[in-house]
Amino acid sequence: MIIIMQSHASDEQVHGVEERLAAMGLRPHVSRGIERTVIGAIGDERVVDEEALEALPGVERVVRVMKPYKIVARESHDRDTVVQVGDVAIGGRTIQVIAGPCSVETPEQMAAAAAGVAAAGCRLMRGGAFKPRTSPYAFQGVGVEGLEMMREAARLHGLPIVTELMDVRLLDTFLEHGVDVIQIGTRNMQNFDLLKAVGRTHTPVILKRGLSATVAEWLMAAEYIAAGGNHNIIFCERGVRTFENAYRNMLDVTAIPVLKRETHLPVIIDPSHAGGKAWMVPALARAAIAAGADGLLVEMHPTPAQAWSDADQALSPEELRDLMAELRGIARVLGREI
Amino acid sequence: MIIIMQSHASDEQVHGVEERLAAMGLRPHVSRGIERTVIGAIGDERVVDEEALEALPGVERVVRVMKPYKIVARESHDRDTVVQVGDVAIGGRTIQVIAGPCSVETPEQMAAAAAGVAAAGCRLMRGGAFKPRTSPYAFQGVGVEGLEMMREAARLHGLPIVTELMDVRLLDTFLEHGVDVIQIGTRNMQNFDLLKAVGRTHTPVILKRGLSATVAEWLMAAEYIAAGGNHNIIFCERGVRTFENAYRNMLDVTAIPVLKRETHLPVIIDPSHAGGKAWMVPALARAAIAAGADGLLVEMHPTPAQAWSDADQALSPEELRDLMAELRGIARVLGREI
Amino acid sequence: MIIIMQSHASDEQVHGVEERLAAMGLRPHVSRGIERTVIGAIGDERVVDEEALEALPGVERVVRVMKPYKIVARESHDRDTVVQVGDVAIGGRTIQVIAGPCSVETPEQMAAAAAGVAAAGCRLMRGGAFKPRTSPYAFQGVGVEGLEMMREAARLHGLPIVTELMDVRLLDTFLEHGVDVIQIGTRNMQNFDLLKAVGRTHTPVILKRGLSATVAEWLMAAEYIAAGGNHNIIFCERGVRTFENAYRNMLDVTAIPVLKRETHLPVIIDPSHAGGKAWMVPALARAAIAAGADGLLVEMHPTPAQAWSDADQALSPEELRDLMAELRGIARVLGREI
Amino acid sequence: MIIIMQSHASDEQVHGVEERLAAMGLRPHVSRGIERTVIGAIGDERVVDEEALEALPGVERVVRVMKPYKIVARESHDRDTVVQVGDVAIGGRTIQVIAGPCSVETPEQMAAAAAGVAAAGCRLMRGGAFKPRTSPYAFQGVGVEGLEMMREAARLHGLPIVTELMDVRLLDTFLEHGVDVIQIGTRNMQNFDLLKAVGRTHTPVILKRGLSATVAEWLMAAEYIAAGGNHNIIFCERGVRTFENAYRNMLDVTAIPVLKRETHLPVIIDPSHAGGKAWMVPALARAAIAAGADGLLVEMHPTPAQAWSDADQALSPEELRDLMAELRGIARVLGREI
Repeated sequence: MIIIMQSHASDEQVHGVEERLAAMGLRPHVSRGIERTVIGAIGDERVVDEEALEALPGVERVVRVMKPYKIVARESHDRDTVVQVGDVAIGGRTIQVIAGPCSVETPEQMAAAAAGVAAAGCRLMRGGAFKPRTSPYAFQGVGVEGLEMMREAARLHGLPIVTELMDVRLLDTFLEHGVDVIQIGTRNMQNFDLLKAVGRTHTPVILKRGLSATVAEWLMAAEYIAAGGNHNIIFCERGVRTFENAYRNMLDVTAIPVLKRETHLPVIIDPSHAGGKAWMVPALARAAIAAGADGLLVEMHPTPAQAWSDADQALSPEELRDLMAELRGIARVLGREI
Repeated sequence: MIIIMQSHASDEQVHGVEERLAAMGLRPHVSRGIERTVIGAIGDERVVDEEALEALPGVERVVRVMKPYKIVARESHDRDTVVQVGDVAIGGRTIQVIAGPCSVETPEQMAAAAAGVAAAGCRLMRGGAFKPRTSPYAFQGVGVEGLEMMREAARLHGLPIVTELMDVRLLDTFLEHGVDVIQIGTRNMQNFDLLKAVGRTHTPVILKRGLSATVAEWLMAAEYIAAGGNHNIIFCERGVRTFENAYRNMLDVTAIPVLKRETHLPVIIDPSHAGGKAWMVPALARAAIAAGADGLLVEMHPTPAQAWSDADQALSPEELRDLMAELRGIARVLGREI
Repeated sequence: MIIIMQSHASDEQVHGVEERLAAMGLRPHVSRGIERTVIGAIGDERVVDEEALEALPGVERVVRVMKPYKIVARESHDRDTVVQVGDVAIGGRTIQVIAGPCSVETPEQMAAAAAGVAAAGCRLMRGGAFKPRTSPYAFQGVGVEGLEMMREAARLHGLPIVTELMDVRLLDTFLEHGVDVIQIGTRNMQNFDLLKAVGRTHTPVILKRGLSATVAEWLMAAEYIAAGGNHNIIFCERGVRTFENAYRNMLDVTAIPVLKRETHLPVIIDPSHAGGKAWMVPALARAAIAAGADGLLVEMHPTPAQAWSDADQALSPEELRDLMAELRGIARVLGREI
Repeated sequence: MIIIMQSHASDEQVHGVEERLAAMGLRPHVSRGIERTVIGAIGDERVVDEEALEALPGVERVVRVMKPYKIVARESHDRDTVVQVGDVAIGGRTIQVIAGPCSVETPEQMAAAAAGVAAAGCRLMRGGAFKPRTSPYAFQGVGVEGLEMMREAARLHGLPIVTELMDVRLLDTFLEHGVDVIQIGTRNMQNFDLLKAVGRTHTPVILKRGLSATVAEWLMAAEYIAAGGNHNIIFCERGVRTFENAYRNMLDVTAIPVLKRETHLPVIIDPSHAGGKAWMVPALARAAIAAGADGLLVEMHPTPAQAWSDADQALSPEELRDLMAELRGIARVLGREI
């Protein structure tokens, strides 16, 4: 940790910082430059609250030298982590595409969806039984029965299921219904009690990035889960909020190489929520795979225009199949497969 | 609701939209312009999922005509709502300043804090027993005992207490401990299950704006609470996330007049989290009151540099007292009082 | 154009809008809904200042129905435009990679750079003789001699040259020195006098997106050039500014399919300025091509660590060559070539 | 300057950085911590290109210790600078409100505007003869005659005039027409050739903040002007671009105390462009003055609804007069006057 003093900081102020650092268990090291004094603090800075230092008289700012995250950091674990969901490996040489409808609607819809997912060559299925909707007057999901419908439809095709958990009180219900991968949605990326709760299970977790979460905050949210003992974490970028309003969100492809460098955990992309329109999905999906993503989370509906939610962003089964063919070509160029 | 067709939309596509609108219970009205056809849909558009319409062939975009929120809208309730917290009225002619430490630490700290709050002339006290922290390794709050410490310290000075609820499973505990105002924090603005839960109580709720929530989303989050029957809602702007990194967040003062026009509910400002530095608080607090805010939520600590969290943004009791004097002058110019 | 009235707008206010529309040469068409009145205005809305309408009493907001841009719009010109730079075609089936150093430094550096560009199979060369630098104390470019050095080095390999024009007073100098493609930089995207000036030439223009320009504003900036008679415009996305500070800018790949739909003009990507680090460039370059870009603008320096500017983001000649091989594979999957 | 090495940086890499620093004239000072090595560089870091250091093998990041700006920095000049425009002082105890129409239209409109400005008690007049418009098809300003009309109208009331310079080729014309204060608009904040040109004059300059410029970039843009010898610079915050679309821009009041701390130059606010609606102007204007601004730049039009541009954001003469009364009250609370 480095403490940069204000340009006219007094000797007494410098001394005050030294004392405080020592009290925190860090060894201070003062360096006087031409215009400013800089104090290096040697020791484990992760236990230190930088605001307590910034509040001291004469301090201009505090710069951290260590990464604030540990378990999820690439520095602590050099090799790529592969998260195993039954037979399906996420984060290895094979790219995994998770597909399915935005919302679970009916047993028939789920049967048709599962057939489409399997036919396109995808190995996991997604679907929402509980939906986070901006309006309290919008369809909120079919609820617990939805988990059963999805379970049933997916079993026929041997597809593990991925679904979003919003309410911590439903965690046990999710586990009892055999949810294979728990998705933590964008709006809950910093719902710390929910993160702690899934951190105490062994179920793989897809952690979506918050709407305007920095990569550092996202890594720290994963650290919450990991600190509880659950290291089966998959990052999912799904577009962030910016000034642009020509599309719903802005897919942050740069996050892919950056995350692959900062963490050993798998990284997937949700091209459907990113753009918000089905016609954008193929371009975004190809970009994500080309940039090095380990997989995708894609919305597909047997009859998109009839979907009960997000009708405008779901691919049809045929579009999904065509997309998979393109992605296979790109994966091959990168020495991977789908 | 208005549906704008693509420039080369066919008659068949126009007809398809008309049929879908009719099926949704809306009356379509087609208007053919020089370059485009526009379809007006007359009826209650709030029940309609615009994405289902945008997914139809030939549709370019859908424009809503009605406000998506109802109970919280100024249109539905012209007069300002005053939220009553015991004897203290929020949203009336008198501006209310809620002050206290970021975190509840010890009974002594809380006693000193409560004395400082009362001495400055503030009528409500804030303090966090459960803290949302970016890092799992940072201090997470003292927990339930914190509620007791705060309750005890505040009672002596007749101050109602305001504290943040993060975990829906603790709602009953909060009510049992006599929390007077429940704060929903920034990270939980769209934690819909939490909103629904507090919506079923009668306790006043301070709803903080999400880090990058639009005013429209924020109003919809309040509508979630209101739809459950609890109309005692206070909006709290606390700075939003932008590209600027010279300060923690950017206080959005424009939201004050905009909210006062869109909703009948009270609006307060948190200048402490907005800037993130104690030295910015007086300027931001004055700006908020001058722009028409109904109150403030301010961090004050008996000995700021010793605070267990947010040390750098808390005012001292003396600074709070001086600020109150300035604010009183500004309130008077606007025909209000503090 | 559609005018949405406030919920309690009076008949007189509606009438006032009708009169104003008629005076503007538009035909008003009033539609009374349950909660609001909506007025459609039929005619050429591009000549209308919407703010004049929004200022009328009783008006809530004005929605445009037509695209504000004409010449650059896909609607006005269905087929892809191919911009010809000598023998090199930008926007056709072949993807073009423009490479070269951030700054022109010395004849030797330019000779080595040109050799590296040609050896990698790129067909155009970039280099900056005038540099927009945030600090007045930083290196500002070698100036006019730089144009000569670049011209000389590029000629040997038959490479057309691309360089940035910042000062409108230097346009003639650029043309006299045979600049083949004029680049308008990020900071000048809305320097309207500069846009008008290059619009009066026939030289192809690369128009970089402003740091936080919307796609609509960017298209309008191109329309400024096109309105002067120069339709040889190439859009270049180079990362936008967001809340994220883990990388310099955020590459907006979504802009690629969106622009390809909105305009008939070519779209290229600058992966070097987007991420700001050489190690991010290959991933971003692959993503851009996979998303459908028509080309790239890449920084390459013979000895990156010795570069006079942007040392940290330039590829070496070997890295450029390896990247080209990967891009060729991706182009093939999409039915294109490099 | 501090260089933070990667966690596994080799001794050779550390040595490489030391050598490069020495070659740059800085004295390196190596400090080995538990997880990382940190190198302090003592000397004048302003001449150093940090990217050249970040490009060296083993370097993770470079942290500047000194402020990159010098002349405009508060550190170099402790007392507030007062910019004198004829008899009018900007930046002193008296708050100055500059008012007038968005566009100069006709001699009659300017005469009425000047009368309204003077009647409200404002001491400077604004008006645009050249207008930066998003669309090439929109009204672009009346041009040079506009300068004459404004000059004429203002003279009668002894008002110095403020107007925007977009095209560097018109600088001499502006000086010949006696423009008292040159405004550099938002879109030109980093038009460095324009900044250099006005930096060679002695005319006071209002430098508007770029749409998404950081405070640091804005200070550096002012440094461009100051480096040319012109220290008569006034900063003008006019709202920045964010994710929010309920209003045109977001007024950044936090920038006021931050700028007052970082620079000795005056700071004013443009509440008209910030919100984009006349009804928001009073609240934003009051907030700005309460936060410590030295003045305002406000749009006022004799008959707002008839304005040729920005009709929706101009105050009427009566509204300006009422606003001035409110502002006077707030100024008094802060020990200032208007």
